[in-house]
Amino acid sequence: MKPMGAVPPEFAEHPGALTIGGRSADEWAEAASDTPLFVYDPAVAAARVTRFRHAFPGVELSYAIKANPFPPFVARMAELVEGFDVASAGELRLASCAKPGHAIGFAGPGKRDAELAAAMEAGATINLESEGEAARALAIADRVGIVPRLAVRVNPDVELRGSGMRMGGRPSPFGVDAARAAALVRLVVAAGADWRGFHIYAGSQALDPQAIIDTQAATLALAARLATDAEAAPPVVNLGGGFGVPYFANDRALDVERVGAALGDALGRRGDALADSRFTIELGRWLVAECGVYLTRVVDRKESGGETFLVVDGGMHHQLAASGNLGTVVRRNYPLAVAGRMGAPAIETVSVVGCLCTPLDRLGDRVALPRAEVGDLIAIFMAGAYGATASPTAFLGHPPAIEMMA
Amino acid sequence: MKPMGAVPPEFAEHPGALTIGGRSADEWAEAASDTPLFVYDPAVAAARVTRFRHAFPGVELSYAIKANPFPPFVARMAELVEGFDVASAGELRLASCAKPGHAIGFAGPGKRDAELAAAMEAGATINLESEGEAARALAIADRVGIVPRLAVRVNPDVELRGSGMRMGGRPSPFGVDAARAAALVRLVVAAGADWRGFHIYAGSQALDPQAIIDTQAATLALAARLATDAEAAPPVVNLGGGFGVPYFANDRALDVERVGAALGDALGRRGDALADSRFTIELGRWLVAECGVYLTRVVDRKESGGETFLVVDGGMHHQLAASGNLGTVVRRNYPLAVAGRMGAPAIETVSVVGCLCTPLDRLGDRVALPRAEVGDLIAIFMAGAYGATASPTAFLGHPPAIEMMA
Repeated sequence: MKPMGAVPPEFAEHPGALTIGGRSADEWAEAASDTPLFVYDPAVAAARVTRFRHAFPGVELSYAIKANPFPPFVARMAELVEGFDVASAGELRLASCAKPGHAIGFAGPGKRDAELAAAMEAGATINLESEGEAARALAIADRVGIVPRLAVRVNPDVELRGSGMRMGGRPSPFGVDAARAAALVRLVVAAGADWRGFHIYAGSQALDPQAIIDTQAATLALAARLATDAEAAPPVVNLGGGFGVPYFANDRALDVERVGAALGDALGRRGDALADSRFTIELGRWLVAECGVYLTRVVDRKESGGETFLVVDGGMHHQLAASGNLGTVVRRNYPLAVAGRMGAPAIETVSVVGCLCTPLDRLGDRVALPRAEVGDLIAIFMAGAYGATASPTAFLGHPPAIEMMA
Repeated sequence: MKPMGAVPPEFAEHPGALTIGGRSADEWAEAASDTPLFVYDPAVAAARVTRFRHAFPGVELSYAIKANPFPPFVARMAELVEGFDVASAGELRLASCAKPGHAIGFAGPGKRDAELAAAMEAGATINLESEGEAARALAIADRVGIVPRLAVRVNPDVELRGSGMRMGGRPSPFGVDAARAAALVRLVVAAGADWRGFHIYAGSQALDPQAIIDTQAATLALAARLATDAEAAPPVVNLGGGFGVPYFANDRALDVERVGAALGDALGRRGDALADSRFTIELGRWLVAECGVYLTRVVDRKESGGETFLVVDGGMHHQLAASGNLGTVVRRNYPLAVAGRMGAPAIETVSVVGCLCTPLDRLGDRVALPRAEVGDLIAIFMAGAYGATASPTAFLGHPPAIEMMA
């Protein structure tokens, strides 16, 4: 038997049939007319936003659309946050539901000319990833006659310790090295652009609060130093994100209140260079991972070599990360459950495998569960972020997953 | 500097501008009106088929559509092979271009009732993965009044040594354990189904000819033993596939002639139980991986921490396997080249990264290349199998890749 992660508290509380937004898993499957499906409960995401507000008073919150770009979900998030982070022209179009005055930031290496132009026309802030991108953006702005909103994305000289994906402290495709950032600010300002400040993203999926505290402190210090060097006060400092969620056994939920208190202290002590700046934290996964449940039906129950397999109608074509094939070296189990028997004692060890004809398609490896029969629904949790769109949907020609909002 | 795999011979031969099917990479990009794009040269796949014919006289060849389901490509493959292997109702629809009399086999755990019914109506052979699936298939056949074509997929008690994905010799979601296979044959025959024989698939992506030779010999012995036990002569024995292709430095192309000679000997010595059987080998990757090239344009060229990055307009959303995120533990480099400078000396070490805003999106890690500038095309080879459809197309909202046939 191998361990699995903990079911998010909102779904673990009620024994019996799993309910999502007041409806049972069976009712959701019936409403969808088919399985597998993702159900997102925006109330769970809203609770995370509320928690953020209490922990980080005065800090603006931006939602990273890449985590879950389901259009009705993005529209709901627009009610809750002050801005969106987008990573492509496609995400920029989704962000058109942003409220007037809310900020849209466009980050990502390899922005194409058409994407830069579309971002300018939408009034988005382009987070410049390199001197070359700056030159292209300024040329396009000249051509189309727009004063572009440009921020400088900085590849920080610190990394976020313990993060799932480190994006600072090393040679990187993201941002300009800190040593060259002030020069790029001067260039952008001299060119007459609307310089929006800095975007500094050091890593993602960190669960150690001290690591995030240290990174945010270093980020503030870096922004202040760069502002001084550039002799320009940044209107906005985007501190990045990096807040992790507990996917696996022994993962411990991030103490965001501790992070928020430390950031509050650090902001209180900030020097003159950042005195008039606004501060933004950009979150995707932490806001939305826990609000989503993937429901998939058992199609076959079989024995092989003394082991039991539950074969479900979903799989890695919808849940690549849960199958252990997206950025993880060692495959570990996401939390999952038999949807009709939440809280029932585990009485057998089974592997939950998807319907794809490849051994990669394993959603639960030797997990302890109550007994499940053909026709039962299996719930895979932590499915609100990087699920449907971060998976190879067309692989082996199965239908796409249904997505629904609670 | 890190090594990369060898460019397939058909594309490595001509120095200068890369040509695919007689047109240069630039001409393909112009014909597509955009980048990135996949170009598939069916002549390269046809050459693999010819090589197979010489090495395996008398053995039938089935194309596993999952490797490349681009519809015009599947239609072209229909001219070259005796059958298709499909893994879903979606692939079954693609297989409707099969010539009359050609075999369609449907394998995969978790076939749903509607898929089983569709397969029966299409006259496909259903490779039964379990006793439960057999019971469902027979009930559906009864209901719709069809004599179903059913084969028994066997989880062999041998594994394919050195294969990228082992699918035998262990508890498995695929097929019924060898110890229970004869009983399932008896049940299927007694129920009045059209029993089509055995499907035995021990692994994939093997480059060691002796491993495949040993596996095929063991597969034949297993099929003979099961036929004797079941007192039923299998019309067809599907020997699986498993032929690998050289993706990485130091990978050595499979000596298929040696495998074919050994199989010919083994077939010549086969006993009475298999005397009247036909034999099929089912190949996907080996037939088509080398025929495809992914062309992506350099959008930015940047320096960070002393390293040079070429940022391209493609990425892991089209080429998940090349980014090292599909079933590989250690990331290694696929062969890639500057399309306009094939054979030119490598003068610098660069990393080729995709346009996605994630550090996972790396297509070439510190590879030695001729100098490339913004606007140049980068070619990533071995892109004919498990490329466009085995990748998270919607990740980060970029457009899908264009696919074209040479």
